[in-house]
Amino acid sequence: MGLSDKEEVKNMEYRIERDTIGEMKVPADKYWGAQTQRSRENFRIGQERMPLEVTYAFAQLKKAAAIANTELGKLSEEKKEAIVQACDEVIDGKWDEHFPLVVWQTGSGTQSNMNMNEVVARRGNEIAEKEKWIHPNDDVNMSQSSNDTFPTAMHIAAYTAVEKNLKPALAQFRNTLEQKEKEYMDLIKIGRTHLQDATPLTLGQEISGWRKMVERSVEMIEQSQEYLLSLAIGGTAVGTGINADPSFGDKVAKQLEVQTGYAFYSSPNKFHALTSHDEIVYFHGALKALAADMMKIANDVRWLASGPRSGIGELSIPANEPGSSIMPGKVNPTQSEAMTMIASQVFGNDATVGFAASQGNFELNVFKPVIIYNVLQSIRLLGDGIRSFDEKCAAGLEANRDVIKQLMERSLMLVTALNPYIGYEKAAEIAKLAHKEGSTLKEAAIKTGYLTEEQYDEWIDPAKMVNLP
Amino acid sequence: MGLSDKEEVKNMEYRIERDTIGEMKVPADKYWGAQTQRSRENFRIGQERMPLEVTYAFAQLKKAAAIANTELGKLSEEKKEAIVQACDEVIDGKWDEHFPLVVWQTGSGTQSNMNMNEVVARRGNEIAEKEKWIHPNDDVNMSQSSNDTFPTAMHIAAYTAVEKNLKPALAQFRNTLEQKEKEYMDLIKIGRTHLQDATPLTLGQEISGWRKMVERSVEMIEQSQEYLLSLAIGGTAVGTGINADPSFGDKVAKQLEVQTGYAFYSSPNKFHALTSHDEIVYFHGALKALAADMMKIANDVRWLASGPRSGIGELSIPANEPGSSIMPGKVNPTQSEAMTMIASQVFGNDATVGFAASQGNFELNVFKPVIIYNVLQSIRLLGDGIRSFDEKCAAGLEANRDVIKQLMERSLMLVTALNPYIGYEKAAEIAKLAHKEGSTLKEAAIKTGYLTEEQYDEWIDPAKMVNLP
Amino acid sequence: MGLSDKEEVKNMEYRIERDTIGEMKVPADKYWGAQTQRSRENFRIGQERMPLEVTYAFAQLKKAAAIANTELGKLSEEKKEAIVQACDEVIDGKWDEHFPLVVWQTGSGTQSNMNMNEVVARRGNEIAEKEKWIHPNDDVNMSQSSNDTFPTAMHIAAYTAVEKNLKPALAQFRNTLEQKEKEYMDLIKIGRTHLQDATPLTLGQEISGWRKMVERSVEMIEQSQEYLLSLAIGGTAVGTGINADPSFGDKVAKQLEVQTGYAFYSSPNKFHALTSHDEIVYFHGALKALAADMMKIANDVRWLASGPRSGIGELSIPANEPGSSIMPGKVNPTQSEAMTMIASQVFGNDATVGFAASQGNFELNVFKPVIIYNVLQSIRLLGDGIRSFDEKCAAGLEANRDVIKQLMERSLMLVTALNPYIGYEKAAEIAKLAHKEGSTLKEAAIKTGYLTEEQYDEWIDPAKMVNLP
Amino acid sequence: MGLSDKEEVKNMEYRIERDTIGEMKVPADKYWGAQTQRSRENFRIGQERMPLEVTYAFAQLKKAAAIANTELGKLSEEKKEAIVQACDEVIDGKWDEHFPLVVWQTGSGTQSNMNMNEVVARRGNEIAEKEKWIHPNDDVNMSQSSNDTFPTAMHIAAYTAVEKNLKPALAQFRNTLEQKEKEYMDLIKIGRTHLQDATPLTLGQEISGWRKMVERSVEMIEQSQEYLLSLAIGGTAVGTGINADPSFGDKVAKQLEVQTGYAFYSSPNKFHALTSHDEIVYFHGALKALAADMMKIANDVRWLASGPRSGIGELSIPANEPGSSIMPGKVNPTQSEAMTMIASQVFGNDATVGFAASQGNFELNVFKPVIIYNVLQSIRLLGDGIRSFDEKCAAGLEANRDVIKQLMERSLMLVTALNPYIGYEKAAEIAKLAHKEGSTLKEAAIKTGYLTEEQYDEWIDPAKMVNLP
Repeated sequence: MGLSDKEEVKNMEYRIERDTIGEMKVPADKYWGAQTQRSRENFRIGQERMPLEVTYAFAQLKKAAAIANTELGKLSEEKKEAIVQACDEVIDGKWDEHFPLVVWQTGSGTQSNMNMNEVVARRGNEIAEKEKWIHPNDDVNMSQSSNDTFPTAMHIAAYTAVEKNLKPALAQFRNTLEQKEKEYMDLIKIGRTHLQDATPLTLGQEISGWRKMVERSVEMIEQSQEYLLSLAIGGTAVGTGINADPSFGDKVAKQLEVQTGYAFYSSPNKFHALTSHDEIVYFHGALKALAADMMKIANDVRWLASGPRSGIGELSIPANEPGSSIMPGKVNPTQSEAMTMIASQVFGNDATVGFAASQGNFELNVFKPVIIYNVLQSIRLLGDGIRSFDEKCAAGLEANRDVIKQLMERSLMLVTALNPYIGYEKAAEIAKLAHKEGSTLKEAAIKTGYLTEEQYDEWIDPAKMVNLP
Repeated sequence: MGLSDKEEVKNMEYRIERDTIGEMKVPADKYWGAQTQRSRENFRIGQERMPLEVTYAFAQLKKAAAIANTELGKLSEEKKEAIVQACDEVIDGKWDEHFPLVVWQTGSGTQSNMNMNEVVARRGNEIAEKEKWIHPNDDVNMSQSSNDTFPTAMHIAAYTAVEKNLKPALAQFRNTLEQKEKEYMDLIKIGRTHLQDATPLTLGQEISGWRKMVERSVEMIEQSQEYLLSLAIGGTAVGTGINADPSFGDKVAKQLEVQTGYAFYSSPNKFHALTSHDEIVYFHGALKALAADMMKIANDVRWLASGPRSGIGELSIPANEPGSSIMPGKVNPTQSEAMTMIASQVFGNDATVGFAASQGNFELNVFKPVIIYNVLQSIRLLGDGIRSFDEKCAAGLEANRDVIKQLMERSLMLVTALNPYIGYEKAAEIAKLAHKEGSTLKEAAIKTGYLTEEQYDEWIDPAKMVNLP
Repeated sequence: MGLSDKEEVKNMEYRIERDTIGEMKVPADKYWGAQTQRSRENFRIGQERMPLEVTYAFAQLKKAAAIANTELGKLSEEKKEAIVQACDEVIDGKWDEHFPLVVWQTGSGTQSNMNMNEVVARRGNEIAEKEKWIHPNDDVNMSQSSNDTFPTAMHIAAYTAVEKNLKPALAQFRNTLEQKEKEYMDLIKIGRTHLQDATPLTLGQEISGWRKMVERSVEMIEQSQEYLLSLAIGGTAVGTGINADPSFGDKVAKQLEVQTGYAFYSSPNKFHALTSHDEIVYFHGALKALAADMMKIANDVRWLASGPRSGIGELSIPANEPGSSIMPGKVNPTQSEAMTMIASQVFGNDATVGFAASQGNFELNVFKPVIIYNVLQSIRLLGDGIRSFDEKCAAGLEANRDVIKQLMERSLMLVTALNPYIGYEKAAEIAKLAHKEGSTLKEAAIKTGYLTEEQYDEWIDPAKMVNLP
Repeated sequence: MGLSDKEEVKNMEYRIERDTIGEMKVPADKYWGAQTQRSRENFRIGQERMPLEVTYAFAQLKKAAAIANTELGKLSEEKKEAIVQACDEVIDGKWDEHFPLVVWQTGSGTQSNMNMNEVVARRGNEIAEKEKWIHPNDDVNMSQSSNDTFPTAMHIAAYTAVEKNLKPALAQFRNTLEQKEKEYMDLIKIGRTHLQDATPLTLGQEISGWRKMVERSVEMIEQSQEYLLSLAIGGTAVGTGINADPSFGDKVAKQLEVQTGYAFYSSPNKFHALTSHDEIVYFHGALKALAADMMKIANDVRWLASGPRSGIGELSIPANEPGSSIMPGKVNPTQSEAMTMIASQVFGNDATVGFAASQGNFELNVFKPVIIYNVLQSIRLLGDGIRSFDEKCAAGLEANRDVIKQLMERSLMLVTALNPYIGYEKAAEIAKLAHKEGSTLKEAAIKTGYLTEEQYDEWIDPAKMVNLP
């Protein structure tokens, strides 16, 4: 049973609306019209609504378009004002329930464009206290097509979501890491490669690698995000801009910059803008790189905090909730788990986005709703998830200094520091001897006769091995 | 902002609940307890609630567990009755709003298990008009762990969704195809390979290929779905079944069969059942195969219906809605578009499921919520989408007989029928001559002198080329 | 620079061959003809040759087809004999270098089909000491098209590779696991869920979970592999079987069974067989499930063997090679690393196979070479990799009994066994107290006063907690 | 059977080599040593050799390292000279057969690093006419670890492959498109959205969209490629740079710039450089975006060239080879097919790369070989494939002007131009009437009475609708 059916029960009163196909019964208390209603009935599929971020982006766009059309002398000042007010109300979240359509509709998003046209027209008419004065197509959609508005809304929505959600989350997480990095810059611990004991580093150094991952991801996201500033608007039906003034795209983009503060511009090639989503694929690649890094960080945290008694146990993480319904007193790295599940979701989304972007034909790619649905889910999950991981886990990380010291001192890989003095092969001999006899490295070193106790103490100094500046 | 925040506004009254970590303020009008509340506050991530299918499956399981525990003499008859009634109410959809948790929580689903334990306990106490009589852990979760109940609920939920949604959709779509196949079994049309004209077949034959795809998918789904009948229940914390009677798993599975009609059984190796989701990966592979087929069918339909005037135009599909906000009178293959977007989503989900299933460690895979979320989305979208495609598109397919005839007769590939008579090379010569001169195949054939007009008419007979039985 | 260029240098002598397009210079010492040569020059792409498994499968098919054509009275006994001998030589690996084409050619594999037709015809003529007697198209390809032979060869090749490589590897690995399982069935160790200490199980039980994964995968592979027995042969160009006797497909399949021992049969719907690869997608889903399991097993092994001094260290694995070029004496879990890289490759291959299978149009899917290339790579890597993992790692696994004992005894999660006696909440209190004070569980238990020392000793018995049969 | 076995047969003579594990029999005519041999025997997996691009990059690196070590006074001038000469010979492709290892080895690539160390040491000794003078670890690997050299070689190899193969291919393809775009800038044709007739554009405009896709991809590749200039060298075992002079990384990077002309630099955070491959994931996202675009372009080309008689037929493409083994005279869009198969491979590779990059633990990601194998395959296939598509297909594209004119004039979507005059709804009425009656748009327009014949002729002018500058 689709999403719409359940709601329908509540909506007992209807009015009659019509479009070029014919008449439709529409819930009396909703602003949408015949085409939206038709979509609800034709696409009873799934539970995934067109994301509200798209709705708000669309409202920004319709507002900017009305202003541009008025500047161009094509739309009256009065109509513009009503449209702008209606759009502002949508942006303020006043009419969320009037956008009921699901993602699984026409691949151009035409029905969501029409949903917006219908709601804005009807609400605009209400504001102006007129009947059938503002027309969904001729006025709200003036100089536009779904084919250029939907991809424009996609770019606006994704760019905004990065600015509003993801980047602040990354910034706060980076700061937490930097703070932990400083706190533990001198705390020497064993390094691990291939999960096996390796030469030492400091916990601060280890965390600096995590910090760098976040910073690198921010760079890559910001860089690839720039392509989203390029908008399809002005291309209308097939990219030629039929029925739009040649300056319309530029005017709308400028106006959008005024409204949002983001430096949008009209794409120099609208044929590309309607039919290729290479920019989004590329941008999502940066999200995937971030997801890969977060997977790695979340894994490192939970492994270092594994135990408490029979694992590695070098870190403690906050005990946020009872971990088990059967094992009393168990504490689990649940924030790491949410984060790694999010990473796996982002990987899948990346596959969907790439696939969908490759399936355009001729003048239009008709996989737009599924693309933006996945992109916004990735941004939202990464933003929310990183914020949660930061606040509920990373901020509370504590080093277990005793464990760290003990594990570091046991390691045989301190032997590496002997390479420059006695060569790789003799050093290997020492390590193997210690391993075989269960002795300390020092005992084994002296036993081989390759170096004296004094040399050992001089050459094997973990503090020197970590090369702190 | 997470899902929970918005609701919070409405919930002004609280009560105090506690778990082993401490006290929590819980909305007074909700049945959930401290652990659910804790999860809501610790995981303000995304908009994806734990699917209701999982909730209902969990309620079936808790009911069956209570009955089994009573049989084993561990739970009183009175408590069992209250628990069973509470579970039945959940299954009936009466308490959907009392399960507010999102997918992005602990990877064992412990918090959703506790949500169920808390709601059932509280509602059970209410039913019995007692206070703190039924305990979430000691009674509702008796003989269980999240580690065996969550994967059990996953299997129940997925199996049920296939039975209730996907298989009926496939059955009706298959029947529509069979009907069209029969209707057009004699309508000869040009075949196309590499998008290029090829030898003829009938439209019914072409559609029979689609029907076979659906049938093959049904076979593969039914086959792989059988593995979902195997349940983890009885394994408790790590697969050993600690704190559960050795017969508990079998008893619960039997009882679940009574409740659902599906032949569930207790997995013979619980270590596998808790930590591997190979069965789900395999099962989702069958969904992916179906998605690939649906992609192909939906593409064929829209290409054959392309035009109406400047495409292939062999088929007509229903005009369900205005296709364009700018191009008046345009009709688009929107059901195909929804279907192909769904296919691209299923491909991404498949990547997520496989990735997540590979990440188990030791006794438990902690990517369970993201796995079941994706699996259920795939089933739901395929089920709903195929039903929609069937009813709004496939059922209304009509052949454009004139176009089909005209395109078939033009084709040069009828020349293939000459191979057995004059050999491949001479036949190629004829086709090339006709192509070069823009003539008919017959004209070219005779011009080469390789055969007579009579021979041509005898050998080139499309009706024979299609090999109808 | 493409693959072919380098070889060209060696081939200084040419002969002239022709096809329906015109003349070509072909290396004098090679059996291939004009069409193969044309493909080499038109597709200088990559380094991936059409897998030899496909070549051998094709030779089996051409042999079977010749026999069937002779039975049907369409091919002379003499030609059949020459063709059969030539095919047998190809199958024996005598002419591997005569199949130079890459995967990145026409999507129907026509050029590899023609490569086989040309080589068999020329070698057949040589055997019969005749000139231009056997014709590549009219004789070797008689009653066939690339469109039915290539998918037939795909199924033969994949099925054979599973039988010859993958299944034996799985069988030997399973046996190794079973042996280790028995060896360690009584060795109690700590369980781990969420990477955190959990209730105990035996090492044998843990390994039994791995064994079950392998067994489940074998079941799923065998089940899905059955679909590969269904062959497209008999469908010829578009599925109608034009130019082939209606019994041809069945005859060829029967003959293939005689030749290989595998129960091939002619697909009941050839339209499906040419244009859908749902069966291969499904089958590869079983490979993906196996890859997920192998990822998990290889990870468990390397984590349990982590250390040697600062990790978990419960297992020892063979030291097969120096692990580090800089750290002397380091031993790494390299077989696990190869295995997990293979798993990641199989996941990518699965994405490619699904994508490619979804892209068929009308009567033919033209992504066949990339599909079979990926499928065979997956089978080969899993087969070789599992054999290597088994022989070089699993067979040499040893339990470090001291470490295992020590870690198990430390664990606080033994407290779980108290639930049935004192309830979850009090048990949690004990575990928390022990954790906070760093004391043993017993000390904490007694300190709380919830139970006596005698009760503790009776109730907390790891040997009982593991529920060995 | 692994790759190595077949070769082994030819190598009848052996010498004895040893490493820290023990003695090994090594083929007498090969430069490699004990560790390489050990890897060959321990990893008999698959057919995928470590790409030669990695070997050459490694040789560049070893050369640069030797020069840097000599500058730092750690390596003698004599040893340096021998090492440099040996490296130059490797770079020249003189010793390709001495690098036999497969991708499926240790995940740090240690064995390929040692393969290089062993070959360079032995060949260096040969050049210097000495025995055991240059040591693989102590000299060739001086100041290095596999952990920093392998990722360094990955970046060098990928960057170089883009410069040498992919970018030139993209440049030539872009130029072909620009030329076709100019040639056809005035040729008006029907646009198509949703595969349905839409408003017109020119063929040049359509091609300009393809050109823009290529340009956008070049931008994104160049931008993301910059991250590959950042090198891990200097980090040695765990990122601290143990056993290397602090200036070593910078010196090597500088020297690499001298050798290659690419502006490599030493990564500012080596912990990141060893354990995260976020930069490669991001870079591969640009390759995926290109693959999505190429999929779309190759599809558009083959659809526009479909027919020749029963498809769209607006374009002609070169007839490079016989298209069918059964259908004489058939010509297929084989270059499109190779290209789209490549795209599907790149999508799978992208999944593998992302997955593998997410699996790092602690100080090292041990999925390096599989990552670089996939990255280089993607670059190679895209480079070779685009060059082939350009030369064998795009360069020969021809417009079928008659077909284009005829299809354009038939279209009903010219009606869109009436929106500004009579509104969307009346325009829709006209289109629907024409469709229903099978009449021309003009006839229907006049029949409705909404406009006069003169108005129609003025308003409906395809040449104006395309908005050429």
